[in-house]
Amino acid sequence: MRKSIATVSLSGSLSEKLTAIAAAGFDGVEIFENDLIAGPLSPEEVRSRTADLGLTIELYQPFRDFEAVPEDLLAGNLRRAEHKFALMERLGADLMLVCSSVSPRAADDDALAAAQLRRLAERAAAHGIRIAYEALAWGRHVETYDHAWRIVKEADHPALGLCLDSFHILSHGGDPRGIEDIPGDKLFFLQLADAPLMAMDVLQWSRHYRCFPGQGGFDVAGLVQHAVRAGYTGPLSLEVFNDVFRQADAGRTAVDALRSLLSLEEAAQTGALPAPVVPSGFAFAELAAADPEPLRGLLGALGFARTGRHTGKPVELWQQGTARILLNAAGADRREGPGLVALGLETPEPGAAVRRAESLLAPVVPRHRRGQEVPLDAVAAPDGTELFFCRTAQRDHADWTDDFAAAPGPPGAAAGLSHIDHVALTQPWHHFDSACLFYRSVLGLRPDESLELADPYGLFRSRAVAGADGGLRIALNVAPGPGDQGARPQHIAFATDDIVATVRRVRAAGVALLPLSDNYYDDLEARHDLDPRTLATLRELGILYDRDEDGEFWHCYTATVGRVFFEIVQRTGGYRGYGARNATVRLAAQRAAEQRGNTARI
Amino acid sequence: MRKSIATVSLSGSLSEKLTAIAAAGFDGVEIFENDLIAGPLSPEEVRSRTADLGLTIELYQPFRDFEAVPEDLLAGNLRRAEHKFALMERLGADLMLVCSSVSPRAADDDALAAAQLRRLAERAAAHGIRIAYEALAWGRHVETYDHAWRIVKEADHPALGLCLDSFHILSHGGDPRGIEDIPGDKLFFLQLADAPLMAMDVLQWSRHYRCFPGQGGFDVAGLVQHAVRAGYTGPLSLEVFNDVFRQADAGRTAVDALRSLLSLEEAAQTGALPAPVVPSGFAFAELAAADPEPLRGLLGALGFARTGRHTGKPVELWQQGTARILLNAAGADRREGPGLVALGLETPEPGAAVRRAESLLAPVVPRHRRGQEVPLDAVAAPDGTELFFCRTAQRDHADWTDDFAAAPGPPGAAAGLSHIDHVALTQPWHHFDSACLFYRSVLGLRPDESLELADPYGLFRSRAVAGADGGLRIALNVAPGPGDQGARPQHIAFATDDIVATVRRVRAAGVALLPLSDNYYDDLEARHDLDPRTLATLRELGILYDRDEDGEFWHCYTATVGRVFFEIVQRTGGYRGYGARNATVRLAAQRAAEQRGNTARI
Repeated sequence: MRKSIATVSLSGSLSEKLTAIAAAGFDGVEIFENDLIAGPLSPEEVRSRTADLGLTIELYQPFRDFEAVPEDLLAGNLRRAEHKFALMERLGADLMLVCSSVSPRAADDDALAAAQLRRLAERAAAHGIRIAYEALAWGRHVETYDHAWRIVKEADHPALGLCLDSFHILSHGGDPRGIEDIPGDKLFFLQLADAPLMAMDVLQWSRHYRCFPGQGGFDVAGLVQHAVRAGYTGPLSLEVFNDVFRQADAGRTAVDALRSLLSLEEAAQTGALPAPVVPSGFAFAELAAADPEPLRGLLGALGFARTGRHTGKPVELWQQGTARILLNAAGADRREGPGLVALGLETPEPGAAVRRAESLLAPVVPRHRRGQEVPLDAVAAPDGTELFFCRTAQRDHADWTDDFAAAPGPPGAAAGLSHIDHVALTQPWHHFDSACLFYRSVLGLRPDESLELADPYGLFRSRAVAGADGGLRIALNVAPGPGDQGARPQHIAFATDDIVATVRRVRAAGVALLPLSDNYYDDLEARHDLDPRTLATLRELGILYDRDEDGEFWHCYTATVGRVFFEIVQRTGGYRGYGARNATVRLAAQRAAEQRGNTARI
Repeated sequence: MRKSIATVSLSGSLSEKLTAIAAAGFDGVEIFENDLIAGPLSPEEVRSRTADLGLTIELYQPFRDFEAVPEDLLAGNLRRAEHKFALMERLGADLMLVCSSVSPRAADDDALAAAQLRRLAERAAAHGIRIAYEALAWGRHVETYDHAWRIVKEADHPALGLCLDSFHILSHGGDPRGIEDIPGDKLFFLQLADAPLMAMDVLQWSRHYRCFPGQGGFDVAGLVQHAVRAGYTGPLSLEVFNDVFRQADAGRTAVDALRSLLSLEEAAQTGALPAPVVPSGFAFAELAAADPEPLRGLLGALGFARTGRHTGKPVELWQQGTARILLNAAGADRREGPGLVALGLETPEPGAAVRRAESLLAPVVPRHRRGQEVPLDAVAAPDGTELFFCRTAQRDHADWTDDFAAAPGPPGAAAGLSHIDHVALTQPWHHFDSACLFYRSVLGLRPDESLELADPYGLFRSRAVAGADGGLRIALNVAPGPGDQGARPQHIAFATDDIVATVRRVRAAGVALLPLSDNYYDDLEARHDLDPRTLATLRELGILYDRDEDGEFWHCYTATVGRVFFEIVQRTGGYRGYGARNATVRLAAQRAAEQRGNTARI
């Protein structure tokens, strides 16, 4: 199906928006009237600009407060419409959106609404223009699509049809199955938006919190299927009002938007993509550090041993169990210090995983093959983290570890860390919904619910994505304020089967864990009936504790090096979370450590 | 009445919060449990810190999900309470907040709730502690204060009373008059918060959008009056959960909070302040410009004439009608260019106005009296703008213009500007509610409704404050993103009685007005039945147009110089607004002009 987006969904001038929309690969565009009015381009210039960019103008919108008015107002409304028809002819647009009236002057009179819309359609038809009538969820008298359809049916004019909008229908709690009872040739347009499920005034919800399909909680794919079954053949067009997208980079948002539609078409079975290849776990995590020495020391004390050295680059491989860390001394950002730059994902079929990612607009990372280097299948996530699809030590596929020559460091004492349990990626402020959609659609991971974590200087949002079997877990966090963009640390969590033994060993090896206050343990004692010896051990070692109905979670944190820190975790039973209840304590302790270290808070 | 605030209302560590609260001048504090748990200070250290700061710990909170549970759960809940009582003894706190349960295990059984709360009160009393029971608006069974009171009354224990919270009562639509039927000695605590009137899930509303009294839409003062009439003698204590305050500077927020309580006490007639002295208009606006030449040129072309020069500083006085601009060449921020730094306000009693402002915690600006300088009564607004209370050319008061020696510039041709109609101040992101409260309480201005204006790169919020007679109007705007903090321009709007004549004259004098697109005028033509000659004139001259039920508004804008631009406005009839409908067009044109001028968008 053709893919389109309303200009209001993006940031910038009309010219910037059109450029971003075309660059992302959309077929068409809805021109939002205010974007035209506020800009310097004439309608003719917009027409030629869109044509040059290969975009079709699918819709001109919105025309408001037209129908079911007294005759004296109707004349003015028709006059207003004639002005807009003339404008649309200059623009080369032949479909106009008419929203159900919100005017206090509008009558609750379907026959009158139908008669006046018919007059409008007659006028439109004279210009070769058609009218798509849409029920706003907050319309004065017409607020459901089936009500709008009764009026359109009664008006009975070939230039008058319906516009369906997934937000207006699903936010209102309407049953979209009735769409299938509408003749397909009367479905003139289909606008799509998702939204997080919130109990709030629908107008505010619509104006500020809409998001792209797959980012919210509505079954937008189901609605598309009903429209397609009804015979709808027009474009799938996104119309999203979102406070964050209004501020974000238009080019990035447009790519995110098209990814959303591609993923939606897969879900609605109106388009196909290469099947997702869900990673089973982490092959490695790569840290960039211009000065790798502090991380070498920390990894060594955590029981990691250096086992290899890249044959062509200044990259070391450190390993413990199947937890592998690459230490890359090239190209690190010296200002912010060491940071997490890439993840290796164990994947059944790396080539298929890359094809999936490419089809969903993920940029493929150029593979610099040099000499004996093993080809790597890699794409970039929206936050710039590179994702390498790997098969470690499998005979059926080139092995990335072949690029590393054995270079054992001093023999360390392993501390019982077995693998990477999860990584936590702090997303720039504008990219949170985009990141969730990326990991969900590209890697086929399932998002958990979105949480709020209280940092001393604002609320973090956090949402985890994970494979069905829990083999791959990524926590996506967004820092409270744009001032903190990218500056808050990421982290890597290592799993152990015996956190007490592990912590005793790493402490003996010199690891300073994040100090926690006695108050935390007093509260733990009040909340949970832990046996006194266990509690004393937790208190002694600085281990945090959580439980849910399925199991228990024990965890602790190292100090932060540059933009990265490590977590040690033990899961017992079927505990599925990440210790969110302890996040406030951890965040406060980290802020306090930063302040003690005179690290400027940004 | 004593004044207190919950630590959760502010940003930072517990230590930072306590310091800010004491510095602002509060008497007491509610310790929010998470702030204690997450911090490194022991309860004993918090106790001595608060004592050293002169603060009383008024309340420890919250204790959750206690009452109306099966007996097996009760034992655990009492055990939990005993831990908290022990903690409170260390802390020196003798009042604990117990919120009505939200647990699915709680029974809808008032007798059971009363019996268990009585047991809790008995245990508390043994530690010298009292329990304040509060109905959460989203409590599972108990969600109104009168329901909580029935339970407390039935429990009938001297260590058990009520905590009233204005948010929980007013968000629920409860009638606060019933408070007067509760014995005053059973009202153990009064928590105060305001909130903007929003139709949204009450839990989300409470957690993210609470604000200080006077910043939202609730009649908090009325509620306080009911509690006082009932015999309440405890503190007025703020408990505000607000996403912005969580990120803002704690010291500033604490001052804002105490200002809110002082103003609330005045409204509730439980405390008195010097009466507000409402300014009648603008005496002057002062622009700082290290290089005043571009502004000299622009003011001259706008028909202003230089009429004076300060006898002690590099400040020029430019005048047209009673519109006066001070051009200050000292101390301007060279990086950002010219900006608005001070406002002179025509005030019946300048001394009384300063006393009012001081009593509401506005910092008094030191008066550098030198030689013949006239004493100035000045305070600083939250955004740093200095406000001078003046009586221009009145015999009953020293006249600020006496500091200026006549220094007429070349005789200019006046353009018909008569006075300053309004000024628009762009507030830093974190200060919006604070600024509204300041201008409302200190100057006695009335706030209009809050508007959202679509800039190409995000939504502006805008709220005007004005005197009852419209003599003084200030528009407070906040830019979309923190990245734009302080960087968006402010402006001064001059009034004319004949905008067409004025614009013709200033254009002839070389003023380049902000260019608007033809599309704007096409839309104006579609929307309004303006006569063709008028429309042609507007289009020719680049004048914007708006109307409301009371009158019409005509306006246009100069180019931006540094961080300031000028507007020319004409009001006809009783038009009270600021042309908000045209803001999108103006903002887009300004962004386009910035981009043409290669001004980097921040």
